[in-house]
Amino acid sequence: MQLVTEENITDLAVERWATAHDPRTAELMTALVRHLHAFAREVRLTEAEWMAAIQWLNRTGQISNEKREEFILTSDVLGLSMLVVQMNHQLDPRATPATVLGPFHIEGSPELKYGDDMSQGLPGEPLYLHGVVKDLDGNPVPDAVLDIWQADNEGLYESQHADVDEARLRGKYTTREDGSYCVRTVAPLGYTIPVDGPVGELITKTDISHFRPAHVHFLLNVPGYEPLITHLFQEGADYLDSDVVFGVKEELVVHYERREPGETPDGGTIDQPWFEARYDFVLQPR
Amino acid sequence: MQLVTEENITDLAVERWATAHDPRTAELMTALVRHLHAFAREVRLTEAEWMAAIQWLNRTGQISNEKREEFILTSDVLGLSMLVVQMNHQLDPRATPATVLGPFHIEGSPELKYGDDMSQGLPGEPLYLHGVVKDLDGNPVPDAVLDIWQADNEGLYESQHADVDEARLRGKYTTREDGSYCVRTVAPLGYTIPVDGPVGELITKTDISHFRPAHVHFLLNVPGYEPLITHLFQEGADYLDSDVVFGVKEELVVHYERREPGETPDGGTIDQPWFEARYDFVLQPR
Ligand SMILES: [Fe+2]
Ligand SMILES: [Fe+2]
Repeated sequence: MQLVTEENITDLAVERWATAHDPRTAELMTALVRHLHAFAREVRLTEAEWMAAIQWLNRTGQISNEKREEFILTSDVLGLSMLVVQMNHQLDPRATPATVLGPFHIEGSPELKYGDDMSQGLPGEPLYLHGVVKDLDGNPVPDAVLDIWQADNEGLYESQHADVDEARLRGKYTTREDGSYCVRTVAPLGYTIPVDGPVGELITKTDISHFRPAHVHFLLNVPGYEPLITHLFQEGADYLDSDVVFGVKEELVVHYERREPGETPDGGTIDQPWFEARYDFVLQPR
Repeated sequence: MQLVTEENITDLAVERWATAHDPRTAELMTALVRHLHAFAREVRLTEAEWMAAIQWLNRTGQISNEKREEFILTSDVLGLSMLVVQMNHQLDPRATPATVLGPFHIEGSPELKYGDDMSQGLPGEPLYLHGVVKDLDGNPVPDAVLDIWQADNEGLYESQHADVDEARLRGKYTTREDGSYCVRTVAPLGYTIPVDGPVGELITKTDISHFRPAHVHFLLNVPGYEPLITHLFQEGADYLDSDVVFGVKEELVVHYERREPGETPDGGTIDQPWFEARYDFVLQPR
């Protein structure tokens, strides 16, 4: 008979979960048991704390839906998401680094042309974001699709608006023969993660900032290259030091140059002041 | 600027969560970050596995309600619940050991008298469970309330029946002056944990048995003594070796003696065969 004691219970549980039929499942489940037990033993978890954790997990599952991913947010604020991204994208130092996808990407964004405006009259300061997509040796990558999305000037993404039924601040741009792309949009603002749920409960018990610095999201899924999910941040933006989801990497911080009314990078003109940001994406061959 | 790398992200996350205002919260959250990251690093968690885990957590939260506690079940089958119970109830070796509460306890059970039948005509073999509640030195504890519950002959607890509106297989018995108690009920059967949800998904990928051996639950909350939550198991029952929630301790396995029709421990008589089980609970002073 398996007599359970505080000393042997971890070994017993590991022995059981090692019977998983798939070797990788066995590896994952036995490691999970060991690390979970090690956590509970190290902190001498009390029954009241255990029950508080169970109830927190229940609330987190129950607030989640297609528009709100509270468990992803949990993983983000604990640094787990960025750890997983980094372990799975060990790129050449010359390549553009990856960051978290975040919960706001929407499939099927409209296809836009070089210099098209994805902000379509929404309030904000005009921003032209342009550059080249290239490989590790600097050769341009033509026909690369950049799937781009960002928050509006209230810090909200399309999926966070109940009443929006057309694409909002997102689009797919394709590079030209010389690898160049050009996006017109509005300058993004920093925003808070949602703090009215279980993750907010935890954050407000600490001095952790609940803001993300201003950024635009990019997804490049180009045949022959490693898929790239990343952000570009604005140099000098608030919260670059303290991004609540640990997404900032130095290589992804770009300078926004203030420009007077006049010619724009796509060869058009603009009658108000605007920002120019230049960034070349470097893709790693698969 | 905090530049995030695979090497430093754990330290950065620990540093942030160490700002929790309450020292115990800081201790718990920083340990959680360290152990969670150590798990992900050890297994080199892939992005697909991470996403499968997020979706599993969502399903687990969403199947849970007042009648179904899937996160408690998760903790049970990973051996975490029994580990926490044991760490928090380090009793004198003479005292009755504690086990998990489980998700089926209901407050406010009816008060029953010595020898009363808590099975009230439900099908099953009659069982008299009797003995004494005493302290570590063997002195009887009078007026101790034993709050008792068990599954029916389908392996279901009252809360698992949608249509039951009166107390079913549960009751509160009070010890007499000499510390004695006597419960009439029906012999419990082993039962399966619910396997139609996310925990069942995991269990069925392994050779783990999804059964619990036959048992009756007890809760003794007696002034001046450590609260005791425990089960009694039937000697020789199926699944004693493989209780899916790791609840079996040798001291809690009791012999069921088969008896012929005749006199019962409460001084009454019975006209059919019955089981007698004797167990003395030993409470530890607070
Ligand atoms: Fe974002
Ligand atoms: Fe039970």
